[in-house]
Amino acid sequence: MKITCSKSELLKGVNIVSKAVPVRTTMPILECILIDATSDFIKLTANDMELGIETMIEGEIKERGMVAIDARIFSDIVKKLPDSEVQIRTEKTIGTEEELVQTFIRCEQTNFSIPSKRGEEFSFLPFIEKKDSITISEFTLKEIIKQTIFSISQNDNNPILKGELFEISEDGSTLRVVSLDSHRISVRRTALKDSYSPRKVIVPGKTLIEINKIIPGETEADVVISFSNNHILFEFGRTIVLSRLIEGNYFAIDKMLSKDYNLKFEVNKKELTECIDRSTLLIKEGEKKPVILEIADDNLKISVNSQMGHMEENVGIVKEGKDIMIGFNPRFLMDALRVIDEETVTFYMTNSKAPCFIKDEGESYIYLILPVNIIGNN
Amino acid sequence: MKITCSKSELLKGVNIVSKAVPVRTTMPILECILIDATSDFIKLTANDMELGIETMIEGEIKERGMVAIDARIFSDIVKKLPDSEVQIRTEKTIGTEEELVQTFIRCEQTNFSIPSKRGEEFSFLPFIEKKDSITISEFTLKEIIKQTIFSISQNDNNPILKGELFEISEDGSTLRVVSLDSHRISVRRTALKDSYSPRKVIVPGKTLIEINKIIPGETEADVVISFSNNHILFEFGRTIVLSRLIEGNYFAIDKMLSKDYNLKFEVNKKELTECIDRSTLLIKEGEKKPVILEIADDNLKISVNSQMGHMEENVGIVKEGKDIMIGFNPRFLMDALRVIDEETVTFYMTNSKAPCFIKDEGESYIYLILPVNIIGNN
Repeated sequence: MKITCSKSELLKGVNIVSKAVPVRTTMPILECILIDATSDFIKLTANDMELGIETMIEGEIKERGMVAIDARIFSDIVKKLPDSEVQIRTEKTIGTEEELVQTFIRCEQTNFSIPSKRGEEFSFLPFIEKKDSITISEFTLKEIIKQTIFSISQNDNNPILKGELFEISEDGSTLRVVSLDSHRISVRRTALKDSYSPRKVIVPGKTLIEINKIIPGETEADVVISFSNNHILFEFGRTIVLSRLIEGNYFAIDKMLSKDYNLKFEVNKKELTECIDRSTLLIKEGEKKPVILEIADDNLKISVNSQMGHMEENVGIVKEGKDIMIGFNPRFLMDALRVIDEETVTFYMTNSKAPCFIKDEGESYIYLILPVNIIGNN
Repeated sequence: MKITCSKSELLKGVNIVSKAVPVRTTMPILECILIDATSDFIKLTANDMELGIETMIEGEIKERGMVAIDARIFSDIVKKLPDSEVQIRTEKTIGTEEELVQTFIRCEQTNFSIPSKRGEEFSFLPFIEKKDSITISEFTLKEIIKQTIFSISQNDNNPILKGELFEISEDGSTLRVVSLDSHRISVRRTALKDSYSPRKVIVPGKTLIEINKIIPGETEADVVISFSNNHILFEFGRTIVLSRLIEGNYFAIDKMLSKDYNLKFEVNKKELTECIDRSTLLIKEGEKKPVILEIADDNLKISVNSQMGHMEENVGIVKEGKDIMIGFNPRFLMDALRVIDEETVTFYMTNSKAPCFIKDEGESYIYLILPVNIIGNN
């Protein structure tokens, strides 16, 4: 194989596919990036068997072929090459037991030679039969992920909790994305431009975290999302991301999203966020002190009492319903408030022990947060 | 005590003195910042008994007094206060065994109350009798520290190695700053504006690292550096930094700074730095692989050979003297090259086992680096 391309184009490609290189693996070949120049395009691929990423880069193929190079060394080298044209060339040596490949990377006065593996040994991405596809903008997909990813469970025995529900509604007009852990539920709904078949899949959180890093996030550019029985495929620009789905049935969350409430209040989001942020200063890491919200008349008093001291602050609200005093893990409030774009947010509460909801009128977003018992904490 | 000041002024002061708050200490009072408003100024002080910092902040004293507040909590709170006027007020309660102080911090709608200590319990900075003082610009001091601090020994039994020599020459016209470890020596010389008495002191590296963080670095503003028998005092702006000196005699480095050489060559600094940076990619952390420099004719060939692969690169040089092949720890070369401002640097070498020097014509800087044995490494 012999190819040339610009350093910047190569670096862009390597940065994209690197997201699918496993940190630990028992299969050394998976620690490689495959450079495939067997057809008319130069393709880079990485694949950890759960998540695979393939991207095309611009360049010239002088001699067709392919090679698998250790991802960490290759990406380190590419990053530090001069900003100029790069030539990548392989030489095969017939060894006694296995075929050895040496990769030569040249850029201006720099010459690297790196022992590599035959491209044929690489685990190619499986071919999947696309059954349905939906199209949303890169910007929307990025936003949806950001707005829900924080409430997946990172370390849970139940694999379903490590993923997010992607659900196309019965009438095919909206995409609903849901994540939850044992304390909260995050829901985002977005209207689809066309009408699609209803579908429910569970996408691994890791896939979404990596996708979020590599999607440019343009409002004008689209992502095509296709489904097969076991896989989800994201296509954008010159990149495809293929991920296994998590098997199983997601939780029946609609039963948990009650519409009843005894108290509803509106509050300025920035003011509230800064206030809760300050309240956390008196809570040591790992300590389970709640922040206490006392809603009375048109005032929200936020307070924290700990060994480190006492803090209280009043925030003006517009209220409807009865007075309530309720405690929360401040991080859960912050996580939700941080990803809401609106200037004003609306809280819905029933009593000090029932779930609290932060949601907008049209329910394009719903954040359910369970309160913390405050008896003996104040 | 009752004072008011702006949040920004308070934050600036807290950030400065926090550098002298010890991370670990057996004396809890040292974990505090002292707010001293007993005179006409508001002064903040922190002191870890080796290093003490005091700074004045603008504000209004409504009731004189002082208080010592836990530095971490206080600085966390100040950082997150609204950008507005802050009121700090203390209330004493006569307890059964000790006098307790409560500090109230108010800013807009936020109210904190924090248990604190009596200011009188704080370890004030010792009064030192200034014997001599020199004046240099903030910019120069910051540069000198940056250009030498990397070669102090962080973990050595010999305390002298953890400090830097500050030496005013016999004729009182130059300040020479020296640091060294077992592999290298860094020397910076700067002309003084006036003439001073000769003096040699060893300043703790930690002091210099912290000073470097808090000096604004203006070319127009001066730092006055005063000496006593056991202390060095830095005064700039509204801040003073007082540090103990390290006792003992510094090494006789002039004997090590030989002026003989067999090879002298000039090389473009940027080109060389980038090349050595790339060469380190094939060296695993902790591995003691040298980078090999082969100087022959008007060419410098840089190469590294490791299990991870091979790299070589040619850099043009202007040479005088004989050809040499020599190995170095690439980090030592990088450390020195990184802090040299000149576009072109000059190397002086004797043979593959003798120290190599990087220095300018007038010896305003000298970097001595010991080579590494390359037999069996290439």
